Parts: sequence; C-alpha cells; structure tokens
Amino acid sequence: MNAEIISIGTELLLGHIINTNASFISRKLAEIGLDVYHQSVVGDNPDRLADSIIEAASRSDIVIMTGGLGPTVDDVTTETVALLIGKRLILNKSILKDLRAYFKLRGVSLPKESLRQAYIPDGVKWIRNTVGTAPALITDYRGSKIICLPGPPREMIPLLERDILPYLKRLAGKSWLIRSRVIKIAGLAESQVNGRVKDLLELRPPVTVGIYAKLGEVDLKIMAKDKSSDSAGKRIARIENIIRKRLGRYIFGSDDETLEGAVGRLLIMKKKTLAIAESCTGGLVANRITDIAGSSRYFMTGVVAYSNSTKIRLLGVSAETLRRYGAVSKKTALEMAKGVRLLASADIGIGITGIAGPAGGTRPKPVGLVYIAFSTGKINLVKECRFKGARDEIKFQASQVALDILRRNSDL
Amino acid sequence: MNAEIISIGTELLLGHIINTNASFISRKLAEIGLDVYHQSVVGDNPDRLADSIIEAASRSDIVIMTGGLGPTVDDVTTETVALLIGKRLILNKSILKDLRAYFKLRGVSLPKESLRQAYIPDGVKWIRNTVGTAPALITDYRGSKIICLPGPPREMIPLLERDILPYLKRLAGKSWLIRSRVIKIAGLAESQVNGRVKDLLELRPPVTVGIYAKLGEVDLKIMAKDKSSDSAGKRIARIENIIRKRLGRYIFGSDDETLEGAVGRLLIMKKKTLAIAESCTGGLVANRITDIAGSSRYFMTGVVAYSNSTKIRLLGVSAETLRRYGAVSKKTALEMAKGVRLLASADIGIGITGIAGPAGGTRPKPVGLVYIAFSTGKINLVKECRFKGARDEIKFQASQVALDILRRNSDL
Repeated sequence: MNAEIISIGTELLLGHIINTNASFISRKLAEIGLDVYHQSVVGDNPDRLADSIIEAASRSDIVIMTGGLGPTVDDVTTETVALLIGKRLILNKSILKDLRAYFKLRGVSLPKESLRQAYIPDGVKWIRNTVGTAPALITDYRGSKIICLPGPPREMIPLLERDILPYLKRLAGKSWLIRSRVIKIAGLAESQVNGRVKDLLELRPPVTVGIYAKLGEVDLKIMAKDKSSDSAGKRIARIENIIRKRLGRYIFGSDDETLEGAVGRLLIMKKKTLAIAESCTGGLVANRITDIAGSSRYFMTGVVAYSNSTKIRLLGVSAETLRRYGAVSKKTALEMAKGVRLLASADIGIGITGIAGPAGGTRPKPVGLVYIAFSTGKINLVKECRFKGARDEIKFQASQVALDILRRNSDL
Repeated sequence: MNAEIISIGTELLLGHIINTNASFISRKLAEIGLDVYHQSVVGDNPDRLADSIIEAASRSDIVIMTGGLGPTVDDVTTETVALLIGKRLILNKSILKDLRAYFKLRGVSLPKESLRQAYIPDGVKWIRNTVGTAPALITDYRGSKIICLPGPPREMIPLLERDILPYLKRLAGKSWLIRSRVIKIAGLAESQVNGRVKDLLELRPPVTVGIYAKLGEVDLKIMAKDKSSDSAGKRIARIENIIRKRLGRYIFGSDDETLEGAVGRLLIMKKKTLAIAESCTGGLVANRITDIAGSSRYFMTGVVAYSNSTKIRLLGVSAETLRRYGAVSKKTALEMAKGVRLLASADIGIGITGIAGPAGGTRPKPVGLVYIAFSTGKINLVKECRFKGARDEIKFQASQVALDILRRNSDL
C-alpha cells in the first residue's frame, strides 16, 4: 500500500510558509511502513485541487490532504471533495454542537462564517477535532481512501497521531514497520560525538544511525526496520547500548525528552529546590524550567537582574565586585547564584551573566562571553563559555549549558 | 506565464528533510511576477520522475526542478531529462575542467563517480555552479522550459538568484512584480478581525488581502502586483490605510516587527522603565522583552515568583490577600505588579498570575485562567483572561496579552 500527500494553500505556493506538514506526515507514514511516492502542493483553487485529487487517487491507495477546511470562502477542500464523490453537503448536527461548544468556551457565539464548517459531504466519515473547529474527513474515491486534515500543525498533528495513523495501520495490515529512537546529547560538539560513533553512522539498513546537530545539543537517531515492533525494538536497543556506553553522562534523554524535563525529574528525585538569577539570558532559563508541568514542586524563584542595582539590592552582589570585576565576571555570576539561593531559601542557586549582543562587547569581553555559576551550601562552581551567533542563539546556548550544569550536578 | 516546481529526493518523501527549496523558489518567482500553481516532490526514481516532468510540462510554461544532479547512482535527473528530450549524454569538456579545478582547490583529485557530472544531454544549455559540482541545466521540452538545479540550498540559491531569475525575467518579458506587506494585530480574535475586513479579504488581483491566525496574534497580508515596485507600493498603501482606519490601535506592527519590539520602541520613546513579576508565565515575558537588543535601557528587573513565600517576601503581596483571594486572583496580580514596580524603582510594573496547567485547575479557577495587572504610580488595572490550549500555549497567550497591555498603556 502506498500513500501520497496533497498540501492545500495559496500561501504555500507563494512561499509564505514552509511545508512542514508534508515532511511530518511522510515521516509518520514511513514509521508505520507506508510508502510515500509523491507530495504535492496546490492553491485554494477548486479546479486545480480536483485535478490533483483525481491524479493522486489514480496512483496511490491513500491520499492525505491538509488545509482548506477553514471557515472562509477561500477554503474549498470540503466542497471539492463533495463534488468529486458526487455527494451533497449536509449539515451535521454533532459537528454543529461541537462548534457551538468551541466558541462558547471562548466566550463568543458561533460566527456566521464558521457555520460552513458544520457542512460535510453526505455519508463521509468524520473525526472530531479537539483543538480546533475543522473535523477530519475520510471518504472513498475511485478505490482510494481520501483523508482531509486541517492545515494548522497544532490541529493536524493530534488528529494524525491519535486517529489517522491507527486507522491507516489497521487498513494497511502490514507486518513490517520502522521504529526509531533519538538519543539526545548535551555538552559535546557534533564533531566530538561524530568521533565517538563514526562506525555506527556507516551502518546500512535494517539499522541506521543519523547524526543531527542542533543549537547546544546533538541528536543521534537510530532507525530499524523489521517484521514486528518487538524485533525492530531489539535492533534499536542493541545500538542504543553501544551509544550509551560510549557517551555516558553526555546523554540527557531520548525521543521527546528535554533538558529541562531531565532537570525536573532529577530535582524531584533528589528532593532539591532551585532558584535562578539571570542577567543575559533574561528569564529564558526560568521560562524553560517552568515549561515543565509540576515545576512548582522544585522551582522557587527566578530573578532577572538586568540592572546593576537589582544585582546589588536583590541578589546581594557586592558593589565592590561589580566595580572591580564588572557585571560580566566569574565573581559576579557566583555572587548572583549564592544570592538568589539565599533569597529564595533554595537548595541550589544558578547565576548567569554575560553579553548577548549584538552591542556591548569589548575585546577582553566579547559578545558571547557568558559565566554560569552553580551554588549549593557546599559546592560553588562557575563555567566560562564563549558562544557564537545572534542574540537569541547566545541566550539559548547559555540556557542549554545552565540546564546541563544543573543536570550533571544536582546530586551534589 | 506560469511555473511549477519539482523537488527530487527520497529523503524528502521520507520526511527526513523539510522542503525549504520549494518555498524559497516560489517566493522568488512571485517577486518577478510568475505564478506558481503547483509544487511537487518525487523520489530518486526515473519512471516517477519522468511522469512528473511530463505532467508538469503539460500544464506549466516553466518547470523548475531541484535535486538529483549529484555524483551517485541515486541521482537520476540528468539521465531522465536526456531520455525525455531524446538526446544522448555527452562529455562536456568545460564542465570537466570545472570539476577538476573544484577538487584541486580542495586538495583532492577528481573522484571517479564525480565524472558522471560532466555528462549532460547533447545541446542543452548549462550554467556554471561556482560553489558546488553540479551545473544547472536548461532545455526545451514540449513547449515548456525545463530548468534543473542542484538540491543543496547553498548551491541552488546562488544559481537561482544570479542566473535563473534574470533569465526567467527576460523570458517572461514582464515588467510587473509582486510586493507584499504584513499588518500585525493583537487583542482581537480571527473572527473579529475577519468581521472588520471581510470586504478586503474578497479582493481579487492585482491587490489581495489574506488573513492568518497565530497564537494570540492575527496577521493581514496585503499583496499587490504591478508594473513597478512604486505602483505596487501605492496599491498596498491604499489598502493599508483602510485597514489602519478600521483596526486602529489593535495594530502593533508590520512585516518583521514583534510585539516585544513595539513595546521596546514605546518605552524608549516615553522614557519609561519596566519591571515584571511573573507566576504562571514563569519568565517568558521577561525572556521576550530581553530578546530585544538594547532592552537593558528600559527593563530593570524580572521576578519569577513561583512560590507564595516569594510573592510575600520579595514582592510584598500580603499574606491576607493570598489567604482570602488565593494566589490566582485579581488582587494578587495587582499586588505583584505594584510590588515589583517598587522593588525595582521602575515606572511600570506588570504582575501575572494564573494556572498554566495541565494540573491545578478547579471549577471556579480552571486551567487557563490568568490575571494580568499593569501598575504605574497613577494607574492600576487588571485583565482577567481565559485561555485554552497546552501549558506552553497558555503561557504564550498570557505573555502576548501582557505585552499588548504594555503597548497600549505605556503612555499612561
């Protein structure tokens, strides 16, 4: 069985947005063993859309479409499908009820134009959209399955993962599949990771390993193809063991795990509380820490000390330190970490000070110079970092190192 | 004249890479006034590629292909085109010379497999690739122009911009082009914006307006097509004026401007300083404020008060308020805003408290309930918001409203 993807939207053809849906869906279909031979993009034009669907149905068993299900007159997917399969659009009471509930929850009454979204072709299967207004549609057309999904990724992804993929798995009834696992690494550069796993990167199917460098993180992706999920899992586990032996504590998680999540789990396990004083990262570390549900169990206080007076008055950094060593110095970072720990009565304090740029750099203290301090009652340490990149990239890399220091030292 | 784009590569169909080439080329073609009605992706498969080219040539004047020009046996674009146009592949001495020079510069001799790249179909036009090994090819096929470009963006982009776009401009003989402008709106839902500009959304070329809803923001994109950049600009200005009259202060910027940037400009202009106390947003507002270069001129202090004790000790929220009204209440938000303003000796204080979820909600205080307070010496106001979505979406929407309140009130 094979599938193809049609992305609908004039904004795609104008290059205003990048087609991330097509690659996301392709990846997910590959994981359940469905081959994708074509992706295409058409605008919000009924004739061209109809031609594309006819052509796709002539060569693929499954046609997945995204976009064009919205409330405006530009959205023509539902009408076009209805016309092709020769069904009238009829008002679906359940969808209408969902729509009213959706808008009521948001304190507004159903807008007139949104009423359109309750009309679907007679007899097609529909699936509730729990985060938006356009339900997914499934219908048969000339021997192929046509599946319509909303265009916004935050609506498309849950529908695909929760409903469409299990449905397609049953439909395809395939016995082999692809599984994958991402091993996430912090504290090493791509070339350093590369050097340790070079042989694995040259593996050929059924098991392969790819390396992906991100800002302040390197990912290794293991993919295995096998008859059953179990046997593919075993192939992956074998390679994962080798990687874990070679990279040890540089690995902070796998798959969807994040550095802030890993820090959270550790702090809960060790029953430690945390306070953070940030200058150049401007609240980014606190923001990432508090992206984790339940972080109120270990995160007490964050202080964004952009001014020297805040550093002195709130964090107790000494005026003498600021004068002698400057706001961007090892000593200031350490006093910030100690100060915020005491201020919040926390077990661990983090202090970050640096130059995020683009202005403010000097020869001895260039843009990208960041000091990150970690302080407990017993241990005090500071790391000097020199990052490259734009302001937001320097902020992000500093937050990454701060979280990694927390991860590696929270048992101290 | 219209064009379409075929992207070639199995890695695209597997979803391993995102098709940024298609959107880049589309945007560039729109700028020189060429309509793109189709984009498609096929794998490294000669039959399916040939089918795609035949189909594209049947409906488009210009077919731009990227990928499949590399040295490996997987790369089948050149052979497929040769077969379609009925020409033999012949060794091109100039390309061979370029190839040798390319590798010599890198201290290696020409690899055997790269020799393939010097063979091109007899009689086709070729264009030197100055950053890679695969030249671009141009040929005629059934009345259409077929243009083959290398897949890696760092090779494709210079060839497109330096050679192909000027060539297409001459070919199209057109002197008109497309300009666009994005008007950014906060504080109104998509349906509310829609209601105010409905007539504009139905405009047909040469000027069109599109509406794009983002989290906590709605964008209106004006596009105009005209003979000159000036006259297209005038068409845009006319529509922009209408939009500005109707949406007034809901508009916070245009094109690449951000809400945090607009807030920064205002605070600098009004010479006001800012302090922020955040609970549920966990530092996100401070982080966004400090994403702006130069924010140290107006941003003094941020406090992330996740615990009640921090709210009391650092911000001076009264224990009585917390007990009677709870941490998530109008009164707490206001005391946070006042407290942080005094703590930092700033002109403006912002206080944010709410329930980001997924846990912690109750019937009277559900997940998504957020209070956002704004305080100066004279003015104190609090807004109650009820957001929907995941934890990070609630945080983001709250930060968006907080920034919008700052933007609208920083002259108070």
